Amino acid sequence: MILKVVISVVCAVSVLTVGILIGHFGIDKGSSAPSWVNDVAKDVDEALIEKFLSEVDNMQIQENLRELTKVPHMATTPGDEQTVKLMLERWRDPETGLDDAWREEYMVYLSFPDTKNPNKVTVVSPSDTVIYTAREKEKPYTADQDDPEVVQPYAAYSPPGNPKGKLVYANQGKPSDYQELNKTVDLRGTIAITRYGGAGRAAKAINAAPYGVIGVLVYTDPLDINDGLMSDINETYPHSWYLPPSGVERGGFSTHYGDLRTPYLAAKGNHTDFAVVFLLCLHELGGEAAPADWQGAFNCSYNIGGPGFKQTSAFNSSDVKLETFNHGELKNSSNVMGVIRGSVEPDRYVIYGNHRDSWVHGAIDPSSGTSVMLELTRVLGKMVKQGKWRPRRSIIFGSWGAEEFGLIGSAEYTEQYFTKLSERTVAYINVDIAVFGKKPFLPPRSRHPMPCNSLSHLDRCPGMESTSVYDNWIKYSNWTSPEHGLIPKMGHLTGAGSDYAAFVHYLGITAMDISYTYDRSKTNARIYPAYHTAYDTFDYASKYIDPGFFSHQAVARTAGNVLIRLADSLVLPLNCSDYAELLEMYLSRAVDLYQTDLCLISEPLKSAVASFRSAASHLDQMILSSDLVRRINDQLMLLDRAFLDPLAFPDKYAFRHVIWTSSSAGMSTFPGLADAFAKAESSGQSSDWDKVHYHLSVLSQNIAGAANTLVDVI
Amino acid sequence: MILKVVISVVCAVSVLTVGILIGHFGIDKGSSAPSWVNDVAKDVDEALIEKFLSEVDNMQIQENLRELTKVPHMATTPGDEQTVKLMLERWRDPETGLDDAWREEYMVYLSFPDTKNPNKVTVVSPSDTVIYTAREKEKPYTADQDDPEVVQPYAAYSPPGNPKGKLVYANQGKPSDYQELNKTVDLRGTIAITRYGGAGRAAKAINAAPYGVIGVLVYTDPLDINDGLMSDINETYPHSWYLPPSGVERGGFSTHYGDLRTPYLAAKGNHTDFAVVFLLCLHELGGEAAPADWQGAFNCSYNIGGPGFKQTSAFNSSDVKLETFNHGELKNSSNVMGVIRGSVEPDRYVIYGNHRDSWVHGAIDPSSGTSVMLELTRVLGKMVKQGKWRPRRSIIFGSWGAEEFGLIGSAEYTEQYFTKLSERTVAYINVDIAVFGKKPFLPPRSRHPMPCNSLSHLDRCPGMESTSVYDNWIKYSNWTSPEHGLIPKMGHLTGAGSDYAAFVHYLGITAMDISYTYDRSKTNARIYPAYHTAYDTFDYASKYIDPGFFSHQAVARTAGNVLIRLADSLVLPLNCSDYAELLEMYLSRAVDLYQTDLCLISEPLKSAVASFRSAASHLDQMILSSDLVRRINDQLMLLDRAFLDPLAFPDKYAFRHVIWTSSSAGMSTFPGLADAFAKAESSGQSSDWDKVHYHLSVLSQNIAGAANTLVDVI
Repeated sequence: MILKVVISVVCAVSVLTVGILIGHFGIDKGSSAPSWVNDVAKDVDEALIEKFLSEVDNMQIQENLRELTKVPHMATTPGDEQTVKLMLERWRDPETGLDDAWREEYMVYLSFPDTKNPNKVTVVSPSDTVIYTAREKEKPYTADQDDPEVVQPYAAYSPPGNPKGKLVYANQGKPSDYQELNKTVDLRGTIAITRYGGAGRAAKAINAAPYGVIGVLVYTDPLDINDGLMSDINETYPHSWYLPPSGVERGGFSTHYGDLRTPYLAAKGNHTDFAVVFLLCLHELGGEAAPADWQGAFNCSYNIGGPGFKQTSAFNSSDVKLETFNHGELKNSSNVMGVIRGSVEPDRYVIYGNHRDSWVHGAIDPSSGTSVMLELTRVLGKMVKQGKWRPRRSIIFGSWGAEEFGLIGSAEYTEQYFTKLSERTVAYINVDIAVFGKKPFLPPRSRHPMPCNSLSHLDRCPGMESTSVYDNWIKYSNWTSPEHGLIPKMGHLTGAGSDYAAFVHYLGITAMDISYTYDRSKTNARIYPAYHTAYDTFDYASKYIDPGFFSHQAVARTAGNVLIRLADSLVLPLNCSDYAELLEMYLSRAVDLYQTDLCLISEPLKSAVASFRSAASHLDQMILSSDLVRRINDQLMLLDRAFLDPLAFPDKYAFRHVIWTSSSAGMSTFPGLADAFAKAESSGQSSDWDKVHYHLSVLSQNIAGAANTLVDVI
Repeated sequence: MILKVVISVVCAVSVLTVGILIGHFGIDKGSSAPSWVNDVAKDVDEALIEKFLSEVDNMQIQENLRELTKVPHMATTPGDEQTVKLMLERWRDPETGLDDAWREEYMVYLSFPDTKNPNKVTVVSPSDTVIYTAREKEKPYTADQDDPEVVQPYAAYSPPGNPKGKLVYANQGKPSDYQELNKTVDLRGTIAITRYGGAGRAAKAINAAPYGVIGVLVYTDPLDINDGLMSDINETYPHSWYLPPSGVERGGFSTHYGDLRTPYLAAKGNHTDFAVVFLLCLHELGGEAAPADWQGAFNCSYNIGGPGFKQTSAFNSSDVKLETFNHGELKNSSNVMGVIRGSVEPDRYVIYGNHRDSWVHGAIDPSSGTSVMLELTRVLGKMVKQGKWRPRRSIIFGSWGAEEFGLIGSAEYTEQYFTKLSERTVAYINVDIAVFGKKPFLPPRSRHPMPCNSLSHLDRCPGMESTSVYDNWIKYSNWTSPEHGLIPKMGHLTGAGSDYAAFVHYLGITAMDISYTYDRSKTNARIYPAYHTAYDTFDYASKYIDPGFFSHQAVARTAGNVLIRLADSLVLPLNCSDYAELLEMYLSRAVDLYQTDLCLISEPLKSAVASFRSAASHLDQMILSSDLVRRINDQLMLLDRAFLDPLAFPDKYAFRHVIWTSSSAGMSTFPGLADAFAKAESSGQSSDWDKVHYHLSVLSQNIAGAANTLVDVI
């Protein structure tokens, strides 16, 4: 998973439609009807779901994970090919496999370090003598880290180069960080050191470039991942889930997702000059102490000023030099695809996916998700092979390649099958990192407005056997919806953090990302500490993330439950009134934020949101009274597509969804409007204000257009 | 109708699928099934079509036309409002109306001349004394031309201004014309006079601008419209269908269709400086005789050189001055919409439309089409009101406003209802100018690959009662298809000549444009001579275009026949194998034209076309064997959408269809490829060759993507 830490306000857009579906579809199912009438009219079978839940086996998931993590499986390496074969073998199993499974290959542009010339970070004297060299590899604690296939920590897509300059601490590399720094420090020709968090990887360099910074180092501060702990004698892995001092988070530093060589089809990617950091002590930096919220957990003052090292330091007047020998390579990357064909509506797809490639062994990212997917397909496949079940709609499984390099496998898939997927896909479910957390197992983290009625009381919460997943979720994370009262809280899929991105943002397909997470009130860890390091191994996962694999089991049950309901429900379990609730919340927030400036202009927007609400209520009524199921399902399935506007964000690659696009303004309101407003307010330029008005028009038109798809079809 | 005279090679993509549908859908329709099963399984009813054909009344059409053309009804004028009310009254008639009818208003930007300061063309001496003033209005022959509401002939959207310069004859104002002229004449500061034809209206000015031409006059040469005749004593209207000498073709000169103020939503239109011509004698032009194909029918040599008048002319050293006082106005323009709700698939739309606004009385353009539409809705409406019929799918009728100003009503409609129409529209039928020709009534002119199986042997050809429309068509205009043998020839809807444009190019909806035309071997008339003039009246239409209105009747029958089949057929009468045939023809032509340059590159394109063919054949088989009708119909309905690519033509406003987009290269092959190739070949620049390769990729991806929508759904 690519973790993009952007502040995102969480809002529940949950759904409880099960009740209203009961008794729906008043077709006479008696013996006088032809047999296909009964098939056509068949709704989801609760007994079957119970059977599915009971068969999901935690030990199978554990063994899947063991198998998947035997060797490092970075995209397109021999280890990756081994996992391709494993997936194909499982999905082709005559007793527990799918109807069909195959591989789809793409020739993609990846970026690798040079094994003969490892990337380096050094401190050099004015005469270019090396005074200090940062560690090039992580320290081994188990045999896993000693595998020769462990890739050196590096910043993929950083171009080769050897910038040299005075070191400057730039906090998280956000625009505001460089802006602040630039007030007192001449950043031209410097090397910035930034900590992970606060801004996406590539953004840390893109934000630096305007100030003349020539290289950017990124490191993980113990404050952000280890609750300040850093001794490998007793505090960090293998003694706990915390990251050992030499751990380095790898990552892709490209500017947009998908294959850089073929954006949509043709343009070329561009990169800024930067390289990954190896843990470099900040003790020696000159200048004054940075503000409190810039301080990390190392036992020293994080200074800003200089630039460069303290006069009292042995490094005084030294530069920091980054030597990067990355090279690009065209490689064959595989998606593994599997399918269970639908009986009544084979041309409607529910897609379930996860990436297969990791940076190293990737026990958690992504193999926790892959283990869950394999268990889920085993249970479903067996039911199909035994003739006990065939879904109403088709289910497509995708094991994506090269996600770590920028969601490449899934993005290329959506480009290749653009029209077909746009027309037919009911929903996309993503389970990448299945379990983020160590015990106690807190609520599943589920993002995007897809119904969670399926997260019903049927399933038990791991570690809390008397409590259902649903009850546990609502207890720890809830929201009071004007429509439904107290319901579980869900996040939004606004960024491009995993393979849901191309489905949501490019195709406008309703999507959900499911995982179990940890209690964030108990730790400051940005993410599980071994993320993207050589310590993300089976040993780590089974000892510190999910001993017994009960949380994995719960995720498999939850995801499968959602999947079966999406595939089998007569009327799709998607609720458009919840969308209305979200739009109303966005609108009310926009009014609060921008009313004084936009009081007149927002009338069409208000009226568009109001017509959406009324159309949504109307469709709810229709669902109760109509037998035109396919028609209603089309309305529900295509609702998100109505919010796509290829012209809304000309500067954002493949972002077209006017409600879910990523936003840097950090406001829980319409993202395009919020960003345009922030820009106009800061620049005061009339062309920027024109863009604010443009976004108001785009929103009004798209929301009204979406409402038009929900009212009476004619 | 906006007539854009672009050379378009005609190719038949006709369809004869009736046979294979007979016997389809093997549902047991016996008494044991619920009654809705019979409704769902009902196919088109041939007896009902016969009844429809027999009820279409030529005299009703004549009376419709008389009513519609009482007064001039230019967009948004009181005359236009009168036609709005007429449409609403007819469509709301309790005995012969539709289920519902309403008006939809748009605030659009139109361009009008100033009634107090009429536009002028004068010849002025060096001291600015007016030596000659061109006629400002057309000469009246009947009371119609004396109506105070007759708008002065003008070039809509020409900006106000008064350029003055030496006159130069520039043939048709094509790029090649100015290029040729520029070899011997310094065009800077000149006024170019061009004849209609060869290039679109706005193009004549856009093409001139790079050479420094400051004003463009456009006139109708008697050669191109009157077979050389020009005496109003006995040769032209009211003595024949030919255009009187003072007739001027009005027109919109905007650069793209739709409301200029709101392209997609926000950008602004731009115009080049030019004005409409009034007939100005070419006798006096200096220089040498232009090439033979530049000569018109006036009794003089069409000279190029100078610039300016002959030394022997009284105009010697005089300039030509254009004074334009056009002004833009925001006006409320109405579409009138009507609907017959579908019984089984109300969420599938067949749309039938025509514009309502004319330049003057518009008897032919557009009221011939509106009269046909009113008769067609009368007959269908009566069947509905009497409970004798309800179509399987919904039928939407659109009477568009402000077409003459740039297809504005239909374009705004497609923008407003973009998603809904994209998702649900089965096909669009356009009947604008219903009858172009005087007797003998030759084949209907039908464009775009929509099935003409409905143009069956049932209907008699007007004036040739022993011959069917179909047989007459195939006799006069045919093509030997590798698939079907000898079939009627159809044109392609590649331009933006009428309201089909936004449906085809922007929404990717299968469309058809139907009309009766005249025998082009018997006249050189570019179009019917009274086109866009004050002579296009009921008197003219009923005397010289279609006395007795039998051709109108035939068009109403033909269009209604197609409409009912699209609305009622169980499986949509659209044939994807014909699309394959077209793609193969395009491909073979591309290979002929570009093979030497692109021999390697075209492999993916060849393979994409081959997979399309194989997928199409496969779907043909499926249609014979499957009961999943809705699924197949979705595949057929959405096929054209698969060819939409919003990124394919970034410079062409609202053109997104990679097969049907307009092309200036004049090759009967893939339009984007042909244009890119022509440009690259002429410039030799590598960036232009990159675009050729880009278009190859776009085509390969889109055709392969379309093939993917036709193969087994999963």
